[in-house]
Amino acid sequence: MRPDLYGGKLWGRNQCEEGARMTASGGRDSDTGRIEAFSDGVFAIAITLLIIEIGVPHVVGTESLSERLVKLWPSYLGYAISFLVIGTVWANHHNRFRLISHSDHILLFLNIVFLMCVAFIPFPTALLADYLSGTEEHRTTAVAVYSGTLAVTAVFFTILWLYAAGNYRLVDRAVDPLLMRAMTRRYVFGMLLYILAFVLAFVSPTASLALIVILALIFVLPEPQGPGSSRRTRRPPIRG
Amino acid sequence: MRPDLYGGKLWGRNQCEEGARMTASGGRDSDTGRIEAFSDGVFAIAITLLIIEIGVPHVVGTESLSERLVKLWPSYLGYAISFLVIGTVWANHHNRFRLISHSDHILLFLNIVFLMCVAFIPFPTALLADYLSGTEEHRTTAVAVYSGTLAVTAVFFTILWLYAAGNYRLVDRAVDPLLMRAMTRRYVFGMLLYILAFVLAFVSPTASLALIVILALIFVLPEPQGPGSSRRTRRPPIRG
Amino acid sequence: MRPDLYGGKLWGRNQCEEGARMTASGGRDSDTGRIEAFSDGVFAIAITLLIIEIGVPHVVGTESLSERLVKLWPSYLGYAISFLVIGTVWANHHNRFRLISHSDHILLFLNIVFLMCVAFIPFPTALLADYLSGTEEHRTTAVAVYSGTLAVTAVFFTILWLYAAGNYRLVDRAVDPLLMRAMTRRYVFGMLLYILAFVLAFVSPTASLALIVILALIFVLPEPQGPGSSRRTRRPPIRG
Amino acid sequence: MRPDLYGGKLWGRNQCEEGARMTASGGRDSDTGRIEAFSDGVFAIAITLLIIEIGVPHVVGTESLSERLVKLWPSYLGYAISFLVIGTVWANHHNRFRLISHSDHILLFLNIVFLMCVAFIPFPTALLADYLSGTEEHRTTAVAVYSGTLAVTAVFFTILWLYAAGNYRLVDRAVDPLLMRAMTRRYVFGMLLYILAFVLAFVSPTASLALIVILALIFVLPEPQGPGSSRRTRRPPIRG
Repeated sequence: MRPDLYGGKLWGRNQCEEGARMTASGGRDSDTGRIEAFSDGVFAIAITLLIIEIGVPHVVGTESLSERLVKLWPSYLGYAISFLVIGTVWANHHNRFRLISHSDHILLFLNIVFLMCVAFIPFPTALLADYLSGTEEHRTTAVAVYSGTLAVTAVFFTILWLYAAGNYRLVDRAVDPLLMRAMTRRYVFGMLLYILAFVLAFVSPTASLALIVILALIFVLPEPQGPGSSRRTRRPPIRG
Repeated sequence: MRPDLYGGKLWGRNQCEEGARMTASGGRDSDTGRIEAFSDGVFAIAITLLIIEIGVPHVVGTESLSERLVKLWPSYLGYAISFLVIGTVWANHHNRFRLISHSDHILLFLNIVFLMCVAFIPFPTALLADYLSGTEEHRTTAVAVYSGTLAVTAVFFTILWLYAAGNYRLVDRAVDPLLMRAMTRRYVFGMLLYILAFVLAFVSPTASLALIVILALIFVLPEPQGPGSSRRTRRPPIRG
Repeated sequence: MRPDLYGGKLWGRNQCEEGARMTASGGRDSDTGRIEAFSDGVFAIAITLLIIEIGVPHVVGTESLSERLVKLWPSYLGYAISFLVIGTVWANHHNRFRLISHSDHILLFLNIVFLMCVAFIPFPTALLADYLSGTEEHRTTAVAVYSGTLAVTAVFFTILWLYAAGNYRLVDRAVDPLLMRAMTRRYVFGMLLYILAFVLAFVSPTASLALIVILALIFVLPEPQGPGSSRRTRRPPIRG
Repeated sequence: MRPDLYGGKLWGRNQCEEGARMTASGGRDSDTGRIEAFSDGVFAIAITLLIIEIGVPHVVGTESLSERLVKLWPSYLGYAISFLVIGTVWANHHNRFRLISHSDHILLFLNIVFLMCVAFIPFPTALLADYLSGTEEHRTTAVAVYSGTLAVTAVFFTILWLYAAGNYRLVDRAVDPLLMRAMTRRYVFGMLLYILAFVLAFVSPTASLALIVILALIFVLPEPQGPGSSRRTRRPPIRG
């Protein structure tokens, strides 16, 4: 909220007490700490709720249960893709908040809107599961809604980052500008690819889904690391 | 529970140990820490559960899926409004507990009743989604139940604050009385406006919903800040 | 796990480091810390899931929606009672784990079985909502299953406490024996009353539910406090 | 992420500050801390969601509600087994991450895939509940899917551990090699038994389920403890 309150004096006077207080709220500035904890909760619930959209098939008489289960493959596929996507988004969100050292009401609002998109994902996932093996028109609609939701999510994630990172508004000055720019590139590029996935849905739903899976796998990969990139001071290389 | 146990002596003797212990339970007084953590969990789950009230439409044959999805707009609207409202209530609840430094059984009870209202919100949200585009009578009923739930939630939030803040019952004496009064005004005023939204539902459901959205947006805005308002000592302005 | 590992030496050498490590896992002994955090998660989810058992009524044509909503009163009642009960059980569970300073595999197992009962509560709550206004036989069955679930939950809570408290097995020796005995009395007595509520269900379902509400309200009240009751050393009264 | 950054210098300079920072992210290396917290959330939600798969029976007229409730025994059995299994897997996952001191992107990915299996468990549990008392073919299919899911979960858990533990890749060097080998044996052995349960499903579904229950009970039991096994330095025995 007002990180300037944590003046050097307070630290100097009683580091441990202050340290403990910081920790209690989960981060340097208690505001980002509570936003992170709340966001993590929403991520964990949204990712776990995905399963309740898969209904158990009702089989009667001598009908084959295993055949019916195999026919549910779009549900399993949707579950796996969405789980991977939300897991990746969570990892990126969390990494971003390690650089964001304080917060304000606009960040709070942008984050709520971003979480609104994340928590929405189970709905288009269920849609995908129901219509992926349907008529071509239905399949196109389902994949477009699905990739569209992810694109909107990516847009808000990028806006959130641009707002926090612009002019080091909410980011520690100690963070390397090169790292900041690499991050911005990463998110803007990812956002454009998710928008591409949305456009692709109208041409080839399969290609759209394939791109989404590839994007999720790419974003699990290590992030760009500037030479002095971390918020934490890197020990200088020991010299003779 | 008994914050008086954390006497100066204990702190003097072993600050780090005490600091760590405090942190373990998430706050200065472990009681408010655990109430906060539990409440945050309920908020995160209630906000994420909103999505499962939106059912995937069952379309057969050549019926248009996209048209059916568009017709679900009351569901999306309800989802967005409730997400915003719960997000805002969470932010305010959390800010309030930063001022509340200890707790007692009445606070615990009031908080459980308050959470009971918050966790109830997905039900009137689903009602709103189902009947917002229905007959006038059904729409009025749905909006009245929805705004009524929010009004009752606001009433309990205000009671909780008045109980904790009255005579500095559970609030640190160091908190500025001006800030306290500004907070009380804010909550009583908000409560009255939510009650107004409830009354408006019987006149114009649309106006009632509009007021609710405006209220949510207002309550995301920065809170009143007294000159020496924070629990944390503000550094005095540096003078010549 | 092995609290004896945290010997005086380690503490003497580096209190802050050790303090931080303790906190990281959420308590003196990391085992009870993680059990508490996991249990709190289950409580928060079970209490918030109660709402999804209340289905939105499907009203067609000119049928009155408000009348249909009023007829759902058993659902609201069940929601309110279960919310209160789970909230109370959470508060008591949490208070208990503040006295339990270490854990073993039997405690872990007893706690999982106890949580299995708590997480089960939404099912009998939905049963109550569906059959409370039904035939007498159905009402009796629903209330018996509901109160029976709470009785079994109370039995496991008491067993868990008796196991941890017996011979100070998992409780800090510094805790006052008088407090320990008062706690044991409290839980055994509460358990017997929940069993009484189960038996009452067969005589008068209404009386059974009334007793359950009274019990929940009683258990929100302050717990017995022995003179030197807390785990935390009380400052001795200042003498001449 | 880069645990080498936490050099001795940093610690020496300001232990409290560093200690507090460590705690804020929940562990020695913030990466494992956040993975643990997120995983715990998913475990707690998956275990609590199990109950919503049990639907309240709809009984009309003078039909016996209690008889219908008794007939739901496969649902209760499935709930109890899955609750026990997920609870046990949680305990083992948590213990494992106490040994894993840092993380990388492969661990993050393996953990997401592992959680994908855990969060999937409510689906085969509901399948088991619906078809355990059905025809022999349906019962075999349901038990095979259920035990197969658990086997796949065990496979990923083992892969995760082998990846982290191989060459002490992500495990503190101070951990006893004997303990490491005992852990590996434990997980590989458990995995093989879960695969056996899957194979058994085609011979005797009952035997398969019995083996699963036995495995869950065994894995709640204490883990192997090497003589100097813990990450925390054991106090040497006091010698004359």
